[in-house]
Amino acid sequence: MSPQPGVDTHEVKVFRVVMRGPADVAGLVRLLEDGQLDARHIIAILGKTEGNGGVNDFTREYANSVFAHTLASYLHLPPSEIEARVALVMSGGTEGVLSPHATIFARVPAKAAASGAKRLAVGVASTRDFLPEELGRGEQIEETAHMVRVAMKNAGIRHAEDVHFVQIKCPLLTAERIEAAKARGRKTVTEDAYGSMAYSRGASALGVAIALDEIAKPVPVEAVLDDWSLYSSVASTSAGIELARNVIIVMGNAPGLAGEYVIGHSVMCDAIDLDGVLRAFSSVGLGTAGDLGALRSKRIVNVFAKAEPSPDGLVRGFRHTMLDDTDISPTRHARAAVGGLIAGLSGCGAVYVSGGAEHQGPSGGGPVAVIARVN
Amino acid sequence: MSPQPGVDTHEVKVFRVVMRGPADVAGLVRLLEDGQLDARHIIAILGKTEGNGGVNDFTREYANSVFAHTLASYLHLPPSEIEARVALVMSGGTEGVLSPHATIFARVPAKAAASGAKRLAVGVASTRDFLPEELGRGEQIEETAHMVRVAMKNAGIRHAEDVHFVQIKCPLLTAERIEAAKARGRKTVTEDAYGSMAYSRGASALGVAIALDEIAKPVPVEAVLDDWSLYSSVASTSAGIELARNVIIVMGNAPGLAGEYVIGHSVMCDAIDLDGVLRAFSSVGLGTAGDLGALRSKRIVNVFAKAEPSPDGLVRGFRHTMLDDTDISPTRHARAAVGGLIAGLSGCGAVYVSGGAEHQGPSGGGPVAVIARVN
Amino acid sequence: MSPQPGVDTHEVKVFRVVMRGPADVAGLVRLLEDGQLDARHIIAILGKTEGNGGVNDFTREYANSVFAHTLASYLHLPPSEIEARVALVMSGGTEGVLSPHATIFARVPAKAAASGAKRLAVGVASTRDFLPEELGRGEQIEETAHMVRVAMKNAGIRHAEDVHFVQIKCPLLTAERIEAAKARGRKTVTEDAYGSMAYSRGASALGVAIALDEIAKPVPVEAVLDDWSLYSSVASTSAGIELARNVIIVMGNAPGLAGEYVIGHSVMCDAIDLDGVLRAFSSVGLGTAGDLGALRSKRIVNVFAKAEPSPDGLVRGFRHTMLDDTDISPTRHARAAVGGLIAGLSGCGAVYVSGGAEHQGPSGGGPVAVIARVN
Amino acid sequence: MSPQPGVDTHEVKVFRVVMRGPADVAGLVRLLEDGQLDARHIIAILGKTEGNGGVNDFTREYANSVFAHTLASYLHLPPSEIEARVALVMSGGTEGVLSPHATIFARVPAKAAASGAKRLAVGVASTRDFLPEELGRGEQIEETAHMVRVAMKNAGIRHAEDVHFVQIKCPLLTAERIEAAKARGRKTVTEDAYGSMAYSRGASALGVAIALDEIAKPVPVEAVLDDWSLYSSVASTSAGIELARNVIIVMGNAPGLAGEYVIGHSVMCDAIDLDGVLRAFSSVGLGTAGDLGALRSKRIVNVFAKAEPSPDGLVRGFRHTMLDDTDISPTRHARAAVGGLIAGLSGCGAVYVSGGAEHQGPSGGGPVAVIARVN
Repeated sequence: MSPQPGVDTHEVKVFRVVMRGPADVAGLVRLLEDGQLDARHIIAILGKTEGNGGVNDFTREYANSVFAHTLASYLHLPPSEIEARVALVMSGGTEGVLSPHATIFARVPAKAAASGAKRLAVGVASTRDFLPEELGRGEQIEETAHMVRVAMKNAGIRHAEDVHFVQIKCPLLTAERIEAAKARGRKTVTEDAYGSMAYSRGASALGVAIALDEIAKPVPVEAVLDDWSLYSSVASTSAGIELARNVIIVMGNAPGLAGEYVIGHSVMCDAIDLDGVLRAFSSVGLGTAGDLGALRSKRIVNVFAKAEPSPDGLVRGFRHTMLDDTDISPTRHARAAVGGLIAGLSGCGAVYVSGGAEHQGPSGGGPVAVIARVN
Repeated sequence: MSPQPGVDTHEVKVFRVVMRGPADVAGLVRLLEDGQLDARHIIAILGKTEGNGGVNDFTREYANSVFAHTLASYLHLPPSEIEARVALVMSGGTEGVLSPHATIFARVPAKAAASGAKRLAVGVASTRDFLPEELGRGEQIEETAHMVRVAMKNAGIRHAEDVHFVQIKCPLLTAERIEAAKARGRKTVTEDAYGSMAYSRGASALGVAIALDEIAKPVPVEAVLDDWSLYSSVASTSAGIELARNVIIVMGNAPGLAGEYVIGHSVMCDAIDLDGVLRAFSSVGLGTAGDLGALRSKRIVNVFAKAEPSPDGLVRGFRHTMLDDTDISPTRHARAAVGGLIAGLSGCGAVYVSGGAEHQGPSGGGPVAVIARVN
Repeated sequence: MSPQPGVDTHEVKVFRVVMRGPADVAGLVRLLEDGQLDARHIIAILGKTEGNGGVNDFTREYANSVFAHTLASYLHLPPSEIEARVALVMSGGTEGVLSPHATIFARVPAKAAASGAKRLAVGVASTRDFLPEELGRGEQIEETAHMVRVAMKNAGIRHAEDVHFVQIKCPLLTAERIEAAKARGRKTVTEDAYGSMAYSRGASALGVAIALDEIAKPVPVEAVLDDWSLYSSVASTSAGIELARNVIIVMGNAPGLAGEYVIGHSVMCDAIDLDGVLRAFSSVGLGTAGDLGALRSKRIVNVFAKAEPSPDGLVRGFRHTMLDDTDISPTRHARAAVGGLIAGLSGCGAVYVSGGAEHQGPSGGGPVAVIARVN
Repeated sequence: MSPQPGVDTHEVKVFRVVMRGPADVAGLVRLLEDGQLDARHIIAILGKTEGNGGVNDFTREYANSVFAHTLASYLHLPPSEIEARVALVMSGGTEGVLSPHATIFARVPAKAAASGAKRLAVGVASTRDFLPEELGRGEQIEETAHMVRVAMKNAGIRHAEDVHFVQIKCPLLTAERIEAAKARGRKTVTEDAYGSMAYSRGASALGVAIALDEIAKPVPVEAVLDDWSLYSSVASTSAGIELARNVIIVMGNAPGLAGEYVIGHSVMCDAIDLDGVLRAFSSVGLGTAGDLGALRSKRIVNVFAKAEPSPDGLVRGFRHTMLDDTDISPTRHARAAVGGLIAGLSGCGAVYVSGGAEHQGPSGGGPVAVIARVN
């Protein structure tokens, strides 16, 4: 993605639209047809689709393709150019009460002068395509770190502490890609397709942590999926079969920006960290006085969270069975549980909860962010 | 189960023990060996085991068998007599953050005089064995209603409004049982094994509703799994391959009883009904002043809830995908989500959340009860 | 689909192309670019995609969409017109050794005079869209029977005994469609989405049986999924979320047709009916003298079979567990097993094995057909 | 297991009994009550149970426990002594047409003088308990090799070429065991529970290969799950949560032994290797002249085979999807497919097909053995 124009005379708009299937773009079309949104202003679409969220989840790729074709027809461009221009990030898995939906980010000309207060700023970027053997290793970490900084700059966010959520879509290994590397005499970090998703998510998250000075570089390659003390508090990474590079969306607040949205975040220390979720709401001024009803405020645009089964097999001392279940993948378990908590608090299942939080928040926990209207 | 002795000089004790696998009875053994519990006093064990909670979940039967053998050796009785004497009810499925555990109920000689306030009372009973063709139909409803009243009486609970949770374990149909009925020229209510679990749960719940005058009898047989306006607010029914009859545990509060436990309940209107869960906590005096920290009180012994995907495919207007997922059964989805919410609120995954809430609470919701120490 | 032109001066060509994912149409594109195939001649594409084959298998719809877009670009037509012109039928589920692929049928101008012997003939047709409440009932049966006869006529097949395989893609019910019927005061045949697939497949197969005089009409509606003595020996029906009507492909042999392909079929009496599969090969002249090596002949284009778990829970007296497994759907089990047998015999996993054989062949078994080059 | 008495005056008997559930020992009890079998003579029971065959498959442990308790009551010994005396090996997973059953091996006093021809001989042994960090590494390989030789000697088999099947049950890692190792400062070979099954199976198979001089020792530890050129043609290893040591059953033919059974084997080169299966039947004199009907001979006692998805993602050049499926584990896929082929050939689903053939036969294939009566 090429650098976006200067942000000073712009503002960011965010829309949440429901999806009745992976190919349902009616919500987007309605915004475009109603004149609420101009296709040229869209910079990112972040969706939750209803596949298994694993290796063979084609709902991500399918949704990506339909969104790209739709924007292509509005912009009179080939679909391939849309993918270069708009960060299309689909995360699979709407277990339990989670509801398929997409969050659409647009950068539009400012309608009013900036208020002086910080407002939501969003920047996108993407890395080059990775070779199979680069996933989960230094190349993926470094390249990601570099492009996170580019996306920050695109967003007009100057300080790391103003970054509240960094969404990354990253590749995974399939049997086919593993064999391709082997044929070239290269060894991939793992030969297990599902396992490769964790490596790719983990390395990408470490890239964010470096970019935002959350950890010192260089990260030794053995630390990936091993040293859980290294993590980013704002990274949210999601692996998919549908791409070969990392696509990055940086969300934060920037001064001197117009607009009516803000973002805040906190960290869930484990998968049942009610207080962590409440802190995220508080960070945008909601529910601060113990008023749980406020968590269902119309001001909320969306909640974004990462979930994972604690690697030590325990949640607050009680054994969970997510890692030993051969029938349901651990990420599906985790999304369902954390989705149940966040949907319960916010009164809505159309929240973004993504599974696999390696190096994203502390071990067993994950970042949680809220985008809300200022009033 | 034979009627229990008069309750006036007794009190009910409750223990929650974790399980490291379906055959782990170490928690029970420790209580028996430590002298905290006398095997002769145990009247019911209500467990969550880590199988799929579906037709082929043998962890329930396995745990049942090991609990029965363990008590048999302490009581010098054959295991089959234990099953006639103690209500052994295992519910499968510990998706997400749920943690395998058992709740042990004992009726012990009162240590002190009754306080005057109502205290936890528990009664058990069981129906005769059902024929495959009786499941999901009038016979199961009526027989259940009758035995719920017997169990109430056993517990010493006089009024329906003092009943706060009625746990029932009921049979299901397997391909083999369906064929057996056919061989006798009888037709079962369904030929789908997984589907039969819903019929058996639904009919059992309607039996509870009749026993407690929550609905008028007779219930037309077509109402089962069809007329969702008919339900019990305290029934929790769970189907399993391991039995042919309904085993019933009635929990409530009774006057004139000693003891240090109380039970209260509320109803979740849907799978994300935070307020419903909070009301259940309030009913035993916890978290009433908006103090969420109190939900993690050491006074709590356990939380009991039923979960189900809303049959209309929506949770508060947002589409869920639980009913259309061919990979994960709807009950697994629902347990994971509601388990995430309740574990988040109570700070502990070892809570009893069971899937399939047909005629148990309003459509898409379910009963939720809390047992707590009085101080 | 509109009636095809007279077949006298035409022949049918068949190509099997592998697919590296649901959106991989490279095999088709190669045929078109190489000049082996003219897009205008394609009348049907019958694919096996790698989803779960259940309700939420979006790989079928995705593949359909990509095939339609591809042909649209070659034919300079909108994709929607392609779906009206070409029978696009995707069957989900490539469990075990099964390999995703598509079989492309084309009707091309005859290169030589007809040989006099019967040759492969293929006709397509489709019904009107069905309402949710019509699925699994008389309307679906009758309408299907009618359009099977139309497709036969299109193919130029005069006698029912010359029909060897009738592939139908039919709709299913989702939670959403069930609710839509309810809102109109109508009741669907079932409220279980996965279960509706069986009803739709069964009714469609009974339609084929009527069209080919395999059973007497009218079929009482209670017979659907109940009277297993009623079946078609050549019907293969597959349900999918991606359509609302039945799409029909009739395959048989017709006299006076040029071409180098023939089709034959037999019936598997159960899921391990080796002899049934061998008879299908024999019907096209392969492996007749006990020469199993001939089953791997290059003459073979593809094998088409239906598979299902026997409803009585037994295969030749031995219990199977396919119907009692809450983790894997019965159709996935059945495809994997029958796919293992047929792939073992034919030496290739890219065979068409589809699950759910209600009223398609005898109970527990299913039709099996082979298309081969004449030499 | 202690060394068995001299075999010269003994013979081996084999019985296949069906199981109606993991706890069904009625088949065994009938043999004991009918006087066909004396409980004191039983040396091994090799079962297929109906769990998922993965980490959380408790049907293995449950069946083990019930078999041990049953034999304990007949032998008036504590169950723990049964497990030390009889090799109880349960393999989970009866996907597709596979049917739960057990094969019971007994060493009984010879009824007649040895015929002079070689006859079935069976020996059992077991290793010490392994530490979690020893699994998949040199300790497991070496210790297994040593005890395979002990079991051979117990069986009276003198030459490696007379060994036709070596069944091993080996441990796996759970989240809990991995943490236990960590707490002692040790690192396990993997932190993925399902993945640990492959390591344990692979190392055990390499132990067999060393014991039988199929490969040269020492095996570098990096070769485990990496160098697929190293394998045993007769090893069949199966991992389970229910034990901490390797239990070994060596089956072969020995001279000077009475009895009416023989065993032979071959190797499947891939999961669809029809010829490999036919060679195994031929090795015991069945179906040699192309007479497929003979494969369903009453002489057959059981067929034993290992199955796995080819690691390169291809079966004879066609892509399979077993390794990229996040919904169904690869071993379940493979058992279903190979089970379909072998059940089709032998006309019976109660065959022993076990998943995960790492270093057991060539990559993507596996050993296949047949036990048959001599007439």
